[in-house]
Amino acid sequence: MALARSNARWLTRTRAFTGQVRAYSAPGDGTIPASKKKYIPTSGTYPLGFKAGSAHVGVKPSNTRLDDLALIASDTPCAAAAVFTTNKFQAAPVTVSRDMLKKRNGNGVRAVVVNSGCANAVTGKGGIQDAVRMGLETDKCFSNDSNGEDDGQGSRSIVMSTGVIGQRLPIDRIVSKVPDAYYKLGDTHEHWLGAAKAICTTDTFPKLVSMTFTLPGSQEEYHIAGMTKGAGMIHPNMATLLGIICTDAPVSAPLLQNALTEAITKSFNSISIDGDTSTNDTVAILANGAAGGQDITSASSKEFQAFKATLTDFAIDLAKLVVRDGEGATKFVTIRVTNAKSYEEAKQVGNSIARSPLVKTALYGKDANWGRILCATGYAGVDSVIPEQTSVSFIPTDGSEELKLLVRGEPELVDEERAAKILEAEDLEIKVQLSEKYEAEATVWTCDFSHEYVTINGDYRT
Amino acid sequence: MALARSNARWLTRTRAFTGQVRAYSAPGDGTIPASKKKYIPTSGTYPLGFKAGSAHVGVKPSNTRLDDLALIASDTPCAAAAVFTTNKFQAAPVTVSRDMLKKRNGNGVRAVVVNSGCANAVTGKGGIQDAVRMGLETDKCFSNDSNGEDDGQGSRSIVMSTGVIGQRLPIDRIVSKVPDAYYKLGDTHEHWLGAAKAICTTDTFPKLVSMTFTLPGSQEEYHIAGMTKGAGMIHPNMATLLGIICTDAPVSAPLLQNALTEAITKSFNSISIDGDTSTNDTVAILANGAAGGQDITSASSKEFQAFKATLTDFAIDLAKLVVRDGEGATKFVTIRVTNAKSYEEAKQVGNSIARSPLVKTALYGKDANWGRILCATGYAGVDSVIPEQTSVSFIPTDGSEELKLLVRGEPELVDEERAAKILEAEDLEIKVQLSEKYEAEATVWTCDFSHEYVTINGDYRT
Repeated sequence: MALARSNARWLTRTRAFTGQVRAYSAPGDGTIPASKKKYIPTSGTYPLGFKAGSAHVGVKPSNTRLDDLALIASDTPCAAAAVFTTNKFQAAPVTVSRDMLKKRNGNGVRAVVVNSGCANAVTGKGGIQDAVRMGLETDKCFSNDSNGEDDGQGSRSIVMSTGVIGQRLPIDRIVSKVPDAYYKLGDTHEHWLGAAKAICTTDTFPKLVSMTFTLPGSQEEYHIAGMTKGAGMIHPNMATLLGIICTDAPVSAPLLQNALTEAITKSFNSISIDGDTSTNDTVAILANGAAGGQDITSASSKEFQAFKATLTDFAIDLAKLVVRDGEGATKFVTIRVTNAKSYEEAKQVGNSIARSPLVKTALYGKDANWGRILCATGYAGVDSVIPEQTSVSFIPTDGSEELKLLVRGEPELVDEERAAKILEAEDLEIKVQLSEKYEAEATVWTCDFSHEYVTINGDYRT
Repeated sequence: MALARSNARWLTRTRAFTGQVRAYSAPGDGTIPASKKKYIPTSGTYPLGFKAGSAHVGVKPSNTRLDDLALIASDTPCAAAAVFTTNKFQAAPVTVSRDMLKKRNGNGVRAVVVNSGCANAVTGKGGIQDAVRMGLETDKCFSNDSNGEDDGQGSRSIVMSTGVIGQRLPIDRIVSKVPDAYYKLGDTHEHWLGAAKAICTTDTFPKLVSMTFTLPGSQEEYHIAGMTKGAGMIHPNMATLLGIICTDAPVSAPLLQNALTEAITKSFNSISIDGDTSTNDTVAILANGAAGGQDITSASSKEFQAFKATLTDFAIDLAKLVVRDGEGATKFVTIRVTNAKSYEEAKQVGNSIARSPLVKTALYGKDANWGRILCATGYAGVDSVIPEQTSVSFIPTDGSEELKLLVRGEPELVDEERAAKILEAEDLEIKVQLSEKYEAEATVWTCDFSHEYVTINGDYRT
């Protein structure tokens, strides 16, 4: 996002490539491409005691109409945790939100406030002041409600920004619109979807997931809901994306961080669009316990293990939506690497394949080029790779038998017709088995590299 | 190469993109694109006691006319060294050549034999037998000359292959043509250029460099000449390329390996086209001492230090030609990273920038997007990166003043008109200064990512 973006991104543009005409990037009128509509829920089950809202600021002067400020709030002070980008150039909201959570040990948080259109990254001390101010002005909205008393630990708001890098926020205009978003807070599906739309940049559709779950030894029905945005600059380690997850389960702050860190490893840090890790990226979770039940405070409890598993699955669903909306992507590819020495080694191989421009262009070209997959496996730099024990297959999405490309280091005679048919589908799974000695596995999700990716990212900033 | 390649690559194809019509990939008739002609020397100074030759095999059935077998030979047994791919999937010729050099400690080598059109990679035990046979059949050619006696240490030939992966060599046809290449050996510029052409795959022009040099304390004039091939799948660690360097300086085998390893670090392992490290890649050097002078056997001698510096500069010139011919490339970009803690850290930052699809597409789009350069600097994962001390500039190729984009972490107000003008040129230098505390630097060379790259690599194998 951030860096991938520039002005004039909300314009609808079409361009001819090799005979196709294709619209790319988010249309300026907010319309959703027909092929993406299926990913947008028409209803949802949202966590109790949370509300969502949005407002129009016009952070980018070209945006005269669409909401670009989102607010997600808990009715009561709640536990919160977050995972931030590992990029050395951390944007101001990353620094400010990290400090806020640390200062209050993840307790007493009320809200997440997000603007799109400007990343507030590489903006020096002024940028830090802007991010602090954005948080404090959000706090003010809550200072008059029954749970709004100052606990003396500073801001209660997580701040996020996404958009162009190297430009200061129009902070006066943003803070003047925070009350608008506050007054529009509500708990309907439309409120949540509105907030999910407001955090988008070049996303072609809003990304919102919700579900209910139960925990062992408890009668309560819990809810979890989340939104994310991404599109370009997506690679392991919190690249180019924002995510906000809310649950009404009663999970304590330290456990929330523990669960989120593990969930992110297997979800948002297991997706790759283009290998670029951005400056702003943050996934935060808020848990307010509004659905009742016993507080979850023991890391070894069955309840917590169940919550962590639920959160991981949920985060995977959310992260997959980012891959579905990869810039210029025409394919959704699941890379499953099995029989590695460790999860980390399996994932390193998966990332190496997911990041290879040669693999990604072959997928775009619907070419069953196992040689490139093998090559990327070979340079992943892990011990688990043993050439004469390596097998590569395509797993078709129609449930038909796997198509073996390489078996124990020996190329199969591939039925190219069947391979081509499998590659026609939008979804594909690539399975790479490493050594029979080992059993660990990892899954990574990625998309292909298309002409459109080059066009979207090669355009002049205007 | 290898993996990037497939059949029907030698066809001339043009395709329309956004109004341009552009030929890409190597034309089947061997004609050189007008813009690349300037990189092909019209004469050269070649090392004494070496000869080059080539022959037509038709490794790919579609190649009915162009030479695809090259032979480079020393009149006398000579010292040799090589650096091989680090990919775990090493092609048969890599294994065979490495074993050969090890067995004879880099002494007594006579020739390098190379085929293009098929990589002999992922071909199992049969592939190893083919590579061994290719070497032994080459040895036979030399068995009748005055220096041809068998020294009991096995093959004297380095074997290289480049082309499609996963297919067996047409080894009978290849070995039947080795004598042709032998009988065509000669020491003229045309002979060397012919061999340089024969090792090409999707290269659009042959890559050949030669020069003379002297060493301290010696009256002799020495010569060094080399050829290389590449195009796609180029990234540090001997990716997708072959290189053969010959010199008539009297350097002993162990020192030759020492000098080559250092030279490759700063040349062939400092270029990146697409981040893919291939299965076959090898740069070999032969030194026969034919120009006379004292043998160079001491690593600390002035002569050896001077030779190493010469070889490094020479290898850089050769490696740059590979970048000039990057698949679909429209830009030649020098990335100089200064003020790092170590050469390795500086290079890691350079590689991170060189590998970023967002940087590469911005360069293609002639966009002075310093944010993406900074972002890739930030995720390089090195300690030397200190945001508030980092500066980024463009160094124009016309000798005019540098264009500062970021100074000590603060964005400059960029003259976009001047930036656009600088980016119009084919050549560009990006300078990234890290921390004032440190002084190490590294240079990496790369190219941009274009629509053509996607087209070349996204095509169906046919």
